[in-house]
Amino acid sequence: MTEAAQAAAWEPRYARRAKRMAASEIRELLKVLDQPGVLSFAGGIPDPALFPVEDAKAAYAAVLGAPTNGLQYSVSEGYLPLRQWIARHMGGLGVPCDADNIIVTCGSQQGLEFLGRLLLSPGDTALVMAPTYLGALQAFSGCEPRYDELRPEHGNRTPASYVDATRRAGGDVKLAYVVPDFANPTGETLSLAARVRLLDLAAELDIPVIEDAAYTMLRFEGEPVPPILALEVERRGSIENARAVYCGTFSKVLSPGLRVGWIAGPKALIRRLVLIKQASDLNSATINQMVMHHMAEAAFDAQVARARAHYRRRRDWLLAALERHMPAGVSWTRPHGGLFVWVTLPAGTDAAVLLQRSLKEACVAFVPGGAFFHDGRGRNTLRLSFSLAGEAEIDRGMARLARLI
Amino acid sequence: MTEAAQAAAWEPRYARRAKRMAASEIRELLKVLDQPGVLSFAGGIPDPALFPVEDAKAAYAAVLGAPTNGLQYSVSEGYLPLRQWIARHMGGLGVPCDADNIIVTCGSQQGLEFLGRLLLSPGDTALVMAPTYLGALQAFSGCEPRYDELRPEHGNRTPASYVDATRRAGGDVKLAYVVPDFANPTGETLSLAARVRLLDLAAELDIPVIEDAAYTMLRFEGEPVPPILALEVERRGSIENARAVYCGTFSKVLSPGLRVGWIAGPKALIRRLVLIKQASDLNSATINQMVMHHMAEAAFDAQVARARAHYRRRRDWLLAALERHMPAGVSWTRPHGGLFVWVTLPAGTDAAVLLQRSLKEACVAFVPGGAFFHDGRGRNTLRLSFSLAGEAEIDRGMARLARLI
Repeated sequence: MTEAAQAAAWEPRYARRAKRMAASEIRELLKVLDQPGVLSFAGGIPDPALFPVEDAKAAYAAVLGAPTNGLQYSVSEGYLPLRQWIARHMGGLGVPCDADNIIVTCGSQQGLEFLGRLLLSPGDTALVMAPTYLGALQAFSGCEPRYDELRPEHGNRTPASYVDATRRAGGDVKLAYVVPDFANPTGETLSLAARVRLLDLAAELDIPVIEDAAYTMLRFEGEPVPPILALEVERRGSIENARAVYCGTFSKVLSPGLRVGWIAGPKALIRRLVLIKQASDLNSATINQMVMHHMAEAAFDAQVARARAHYRRRRDWLLAALERHMPAGVSWTRPHGGLFVWVTLPAGTDAAVLLQRSLKEACVAFVPGGAFFHDGRGRNTLRLSFSLAGEAEIDRGMARLARLI
Repeated sequence: MTEAAQAAAWEPRYARRAKRMAASEIRELLKVLDQPGVLSFAGGIPDPALFPVEDAKAAYAAVLGAPTNGLQYSVSEGYLPLRQWIARHMGGLGVPCDADNIIVTCGSQQGLEFLGRLLLSPGDTALVMAPTYLGALQAFSGCEPRYDELRPEHGNRTPASYVDATRRAGGDVKLAYVVPDFANPTGETLSLAARVRLLDLAAELDIPVIEDAAYTMLRFEGEPVPPILALEVERRGSIENARAVYCGTFSKVLSPGLRVGWIAGPKALIRRLVLIKQASDLNSATINQMVMHHMAEAAFDAQVARARAHYRRRRDWLLAALERHMPAGVSWTRPHGGLFVWVTLPAGTDAAVLLQRSLKEACVAFVPGGAFFHDGRGRNTLRLSFSLAGEAEIDRGMARLARLI
């Protein structure tokens, strides 16, 4: 059989949900983009120069030298001292809670995927921003939802308009998903007023808000806006009554390679997620949870400070280079944190076509913006990550890109 | 709100699949069983005395000392040198393949869960042994399948009998799942004739066989039986044409705490699984994959030999204690490997009731067998794990248990 025939022979066997999951192959693209020789503003990954390698060495040695066994299976909800650390961290963000309000996940990606499986049935609606985090669309799409658009910064649509559309599709509105701080891909932060409006809408629709806080610690300037879960706890009196869930991660501050994130929410919800975790992979790597606890105790605050200074410098370089080189008609966001700047090209420009030219003629890579829209809009947008490039590369990259535009 | 009211408020929000996943809470039971003071034959976990702690220390130090970055994100299919090692390992088992036939998963549990999501739609049928691995039932149940029973050791049922039953439920027969070697929970091994019969049935039904090889390396005596995938590759000429998938793991030989397992299968299938992996958790912990590669290179064969000798001794102790103490009417399996002995009590005895008495009156724990049946049979059966107890504990535990029976 040929390779195509072999693939075709499997095709009818796959569940519909798995076909939906396969729709976006953008990560394959990212792999190609991050090739040596290419000035890449594509992958949104942390700068490895920031990784706390010495802390990690010390932590692994300590865990493997202690009698508590990092090499054994563990409980599905996660390592208790780590969950206690996370609960204290959440308290510091305005979310008083305890360890039973936390489940440890393999990065916040797994948290999103679990919440999709817990809440979404085929035909149900997930409310998302447009654009939004591509990985969330991938995670939810395995549950075969439809999507509808949130615009909390510009006033909510009426609840009835969401409900009518989803009823026609045979489902219910089941969740709202946002990246409130320095969003992937736009770099923008939801204002306090928008967060309040979002909670108002969620209350009217009686749905939970899933808050993806991947970049929250990476604020360069301005005052932090309270997490949506903190506002909801304030409204409802307790996290146990809250209709909001917080997905956190150590990936952007300490290390993504250990795959340690968490979900914070009401205990009733966390208990259900623990059953999904058991069925999915039994538990997150025991040793990595113990090591992350060590590293968080030893280095979290210092790492946050280092990362903020580091990425702030890079953002400034990128904004300066855009200012210097981009022609009129091109606009971009000015994020107060995170890893991304979002660029809007003149209407009619196709960023996917630009990418092909850019790779060939300029050796500059970025991610075309269309992939971040649930409905295929945004062809004239693109995402630039400033996490990896130095000042000279950034300037050279933007000069080349501007010439192509 | 009371705790019950809080839980009830979430209940209508959950997808039906998540409710199915929640059905089995046996792992919660296992946690209670493995309390200090209890002679536990319940949890089927490796003996930590066997863990290669020094190898792990050396491997983490080496990975963190090298420029390749274990702390960074990685590709979803897994760390290439580890996949190459696994491909060679599979070759040694009679499955010639290369790294692209392998995806790294968070233990074989994640492999089972992914294969369920890839293949099973609601109402489809998964063919399983009765009893079978509880974690597979948990993993598949999130896809809302029905189950039907495989009995390859006793001659197959007709394909039509499976097809008719699943058509009435509105689905298709989509997969067969077995633990061919030293099965959890029975300890039994499928004969070569049974494997061939199973592949015959699968060919007639045109479905893949999922082979859960968690215990395969732990053979104490007798000749290895070829993996089902090896037999299928022989039949079809190449792994690319095979309709069988192999779920392997390092958990029973090296360490379960790193959560490193794999799926081996045709490249077309592996590529689809990579998309599910991306959507589910991006990648398995990078550092653990690198460390597992180091440990596998340094210690796999020696660890296999140590584990075989260690568990063989324990199996012999348990079989001797059963022989010495159990009354007539009680029978048990005599496994050639693995971690489990399966006990059948006189008809009418309820092992769940026995467990309650046993915990209270004898401080002896085991897992009642009913949980391992997809259809609630087997109330007079129980699983004993011999992985953790010493000779004296085993003898004392069986003497106490026998008195209660």
